[in-house]
Parts: sequence; C-alpha cells; structure tokens
Amino acid sequence: MIIDCHGHYTTAPAALQQFREAQLAALKDPAAAPVAPPVISDEQLRASLANAQLKLQRERGSDLTIFSPRASAMGHHLGNEASSLAWARVCNDLIHRVCQLFPANFVGVCQLPQAVGAAPANSALELERCVRELGFVGCNLNPDPSGGHWNSPPLTDRYWYPLYQKMVELDVPAMVHVSASCNPNFHATGAHYINADTTAFMQFLTSDLFKDFPTLRFIIPHGGGAVPYHWGRYRGLAQDLKRPPLEELMRNVYFDTCVYHLPGIELLFKVVPHENILFGSEMVGAVRGIDVRTGQYYDDTKRYVDALHLSEADQGRVFEANARRVFPRLDALLKTRGR
Amino acid sequence: MIIDCHGHYTTAPAALQQFREAQLAALKDPAAAPVAPPVISDEQLRASLANAQLKLQRERGSDLTIFSPRASAMGHHLGNEASSLAWARVCNDLIHRVCQLFPANFVGVCQLPQAVGAAPANSALELERCVRELGFVGCNLNPDPSGGHWNSPPLTDRYWYPLYQKMVELDVPAMVHVSASCNPNFHATGAHYINADTTAFMQFLTSDLFKDFPTLRFIIPHGGGAVPYHWGRYRGLAQDLKRPPLEELMRNVYFDTCVYHLPGIELLFKVVPHENILFGSEMVGAVRGIDVRTGQYYDDTKRYVDALHLSEADQGRVFEANARRVFPRLDALLKTRGR
Repeated sequence: MIIDCHGHYTTAPAALQQFREAQLAALKDPAAAPVAPPVISDEQLRASLANAQLKLQRERGSDLTIFSPRASAMGHHLGNEASSLAWARVCNDLIHRVCQLFPANFVGVCQLPQAVGAAPANSALELERCVRELGFVGCNLNPDPSGGHWNSPPLTDRYWYPLYQKMVELDVPAMVHVSASCNPNFHATGAHYINADTTAFMQFLTSDLFKDFPTLRFIIPHGGGAVPYHWGRYRGLAQDLKRPPLEELMRNVYFDTCVYHLPGIELLFKVVPHENILFGSEMVGAVRGIDVRTGQYYDDTKRYVDALHLSEADQGRVFEANARRVFPRLDALLKTRGR
Repeated sequence: MIIDCHGHYTTAPAALQQFREAQLAALKDPAAAPVAPPVISDEQLRASLANAQLKLQRERGSDLTIFSPRASAMGHHLGNEASSLAWARVCNDLIHRVCQLFPANFVGVCQLPQAVGAAPANSALELERCVRELGFVGCNLNPDPSGGHWNSPPLTDRYWYPLYQKMVELDVPAMVHVSASCNPNFHATGAHYINADTTAFMQFLTSDLFKDFPTLRFIIPHGGGAVPYHWGRYRGLAQDLKRPPLEELMRNVYFDTCVYHLPGIELLFKVVPHENILFGSEMVGAVRGIDVRTGQYYDDTKRYVDALHLSEADQGRVFEANARRVFPRLDALLKTRGR
C-alpha cells in the first residue's frame, strides 16, 4: 500500500475561494451581513478530483493521500482570528466530505484557525473537532501565521504548548507548513516554504521541546527544506552547540519526499535514516509542469523513489509503515478496514 | 593554485569587538565621547591568524582566501547608519592590513555600511573606497539589514540599483551574506544564513535584474542554500512561472562549496554547472568541530571536492579559474604578481 503523506485540496471548486474573498471583504465593511458558507455539491467535489488527484493517484500508483486544505490559501495573516476559524472550519468540512466520498483515497488532515497572537489553545479546539468528529489524523501547523514577517514565538516556545498537549492527547502529528507570503522578499513556494522547513528544524535542534513532549511528532515537508543538503552542517552545529546528535532529534522529526528531482531524492535517502522518510508528492501542488528532459511530471516523486531500488523492507517503510507509525489514527482506521 | 572564495576574519583580536561594544554603548548616551578606533598591532594581527586561517590554509592545501570581516558581527540591525559606516570602515581597514601583512594569503572583500532604510548609494561609496584605495575585489551584500525581519526591498528592487551600478562600474561581484539574527525564530548560522541564500536565488529567478545589469554577478554562499537540493523544484518553478531556464540565470549567479559533508558536495556538482561553483570553506566559521565519524573538520571542504575526483580541467575551474573570472580584479592582481 502506498500512502502519500502530503496532498492539499488545490483543485477545490471556485465557490470555496469566492466564499473566502467575500468573507475577507465583509470584514472591511461593518455593515456587511455574515457571509454564508459556500454551497458545493457532491458532484462538484467529484469533478474537482476526478481529473486531478484521483487520476494522478491511479497513473502514478499511489493508493491513499493524507489530504488537507490548500496550504497557500490558509492565509493566517489575513482577516482576524474569528475569520480564520470560520475559514478553517469551512475548509476542513470540505476535506471531510472528500474523505467521505472517497474513503479509500483520502484521509483528512486539518487546517488550524491560526492568527498572529491567537492562542494556540483555540487551534487545539479545532484540531479536537476534526479528529474526534471528522476522523482526521493530523494537522498542518503554520510556524509563521504572519505570512513572512516571522513575529510569532518559535515552535519550541511554551506559547505553543496548549496545542502540543492536545496533539499528544489525541496522538496526532503536525506537518510544519507555512501559507502564502505577504513579504515581497519571499516567494511562497520558492522561498517561504523551504525557509520555514529549515527554520523549524533548527528550532527543534536547539531546544528541549521533545524532553517536554517525548511523543510529539512533526513532519517537515519538502524533503526537510535545506536540511539534508546541509546534514553535515547540522551535525556539526549540534556538536558545537553541545546538543544531542541528530539521531536523537529524529525520534520526533520526519521528512517527506517532496523533492522534485532524482539527485535530491538520492541525497535524502543517503543521509536521513529511512525510518524518518515518509513518501509524499504534494500533488497537485507547487510545481505542476512536465520536465521536458524526462517527459515526466516534476512532482511525480514516486518515480524518483522507485529509481533508488530500495530493499522491499525499506520500500515498505517509506511508502506505508512510517506513515502508519507517525499517524497512529490512520493506522487504526486502515486496520478497521482490513488494510 | 587554490582560491578559497569565502573566509571571514572571525579570529580578530578582542580589541575589535571591544570597540564595537563601546561604539554601540556610546550611541545610547548622548553625552558620550566618540569612541576611538581600536589599537591593534601587527603582531596581534599575525598572532590572530597564525594558528587559525594561516595554519589551516597550509594543512588543507589552499593558497589564497578571499577575506572579509566577520559576517555575524556586521550587525546592520544595530546602531544606525553612521555607526554602521564607522564600524564597516574599521573592519575593512583591518582586513586591508591583514592583506598587506600576508599578500600571498589574503585578498580583501568589504563589509558595507548597511542599515535598514539606508541608501545603497552610501554603500557604493564605501565599496569604491575599498576597491580603489584598499585593493579589495568585491563586497558582501546583506539582503536583510534588519537581522531577520526582512523589511527591506528584495535584492531585485530598484532600491539597490545605485550599489549595483557601482559594482558594475568597478567590475566587482557581491556575495549575498546576511549577518546575525535578532529574530528568535532564526538561528543565525543554522537557519538565517541558509534561508537568505535560498531567498536571494528565488528573487533572482523571478526578476529581470540581469537584463538591467548583464554583467552583475552574485555569489550565493553555503552551497546556494537549499537550491541545489531542490534543483528540480526551481527548474519546475521557472517553467511554471514562464521564466527563462536556470541556465540563463546562472550566467550571473554562482555558488560556493560551503557544504559540510560529502553527499551534499556530490549533489552540488551533480546538478549545478561546474562553471558556477567556486571553492569555498568559510573557515574559521560557522562549524568548527571535528566530525568524530571521519576525524576531519566538517568545514574542510577541500576533502569533499577532492573525493569527487574531478577532471583536471574541472578542478582548475572550481579551485581557481571560476574565482578569477567572477573576481576580475583578483585575476588582475594575481597577474601582476606573476601568478
């Protein structure tokens, strides 16, 4: 079984984005009536997926995608905490409907109602709703709700602990995932995403967070940002800073395979323990084109992993077992279905 | 001949940092007298280098280091523009003295008197002084003088053009190099440095800067940040964004080899044209330890490059010719010395 740990609903019907725009517009007009949630039919949901994620799953040979709302549209820097909550609920409820329509293909991960200065305890409430009521198995945590101004505390600050307590209680991991950038220095998918991954890793490396939460788990997407390429730098920094070796950190931190060329995937598997690598593609996502050199989609990461000719045991880990270990609720769900 | 394109004077005598601290303290006290420049003897300079850069050059087999003031101490976010100028001059003058004492071992690259909101034209003046009066061959340009708040215009903004005009006029390149971070989210050498590299590359990728300045050249240090690891992502983004292929961008952009493990260096050379790679180690710099696995210094990057068994032509490019091409004033200087 092949589990793609990283997919966003980037192809949602236009009504979703229209709702968001109306919602944000209404915030500027005190006289505006509350904006009604978007009306989207099951047929529209099916159509939005048929020629995108579902087709690509079939063509590329993955079975199930851990599916969350579109990351770049989370926009925690827009509106306020109340509008972030309303937006997160609408997005999460839509993911839930997708998972009900195609239970074999998708399992949900939620967007959190973050905002600069908002209490993470409030995110914990939406996480709990999504896990307990909608059957979700994790969340996406934005380390920079400002959208590129980085004015929230580091992920290792006690500020975030109420959310972590809930993650531990529910036994769900978070993928560290920023949203769009409103800072002209940072291109969203070309800089902000990758920087956030690198930043989060270094925050974890320099703190004792996992002493406080030994079972807390994070997936750092996009192959861990810059980290595997600079693995020697991080090993050396850990040593200079008198921190534990990276192996210890990697009890709680995982990377996906969203690296869009074979040499990058080769490097990832050369330096990072295979127990820490979860197959992911982020399709349909940041890079949608076909590489003229290979004739294949850049983000068809399964091809790169296949090209490594891993042992059967390692394939089993990367494609399935690691995801089931990091997302125990996914494992439990699959077991109830005999998978 | 082996040129290390990336070295900072991290071992300067303590009087330098004492001057800086006194200078910043005086800024807070309107009654304080101007702080006199530090008094440092030639003997002190020699001693500061003998068991550090000079010893390591000999041991590792490099000949000449392109040498600049300590990057993490530039601190463009501290003080104001006047104090940044005074500090840059003191630091650059000290580099000049080092280069005079050891002309075979060091050639200068300058720190710029940057500050948030300061006119880059003022940096151009200090660059001109360093190049014309001190014989320097380039500069370090900080894309984020705020130290982690990223509130200056992107490097591709016309804001920076007065500096670029001077760089083109003098035919000198800039290394894109941030300084310390005052943002608790960003560890300086573990996140801020690498993020800045990645950020700068994506800024260049999305702009027409090099149409305006066809001969402008930037070195992105630390192996290009996350870029080579995500080379497929950047190729795909360029394609999706209808930008020219990366090969075109690489007429103006170069990476060093400050990647502290062999698999990273292997990847760099696998994906990046060898014409664009300049040997560098940043010693004595961010990572100073010895890897217990290999018994060698993490930052002894020559070992990794040697382990690639490049052709003689490629070795010549990476160790010497590329640096002489990117730094024409270095080439001219070496020629006057018959090297």
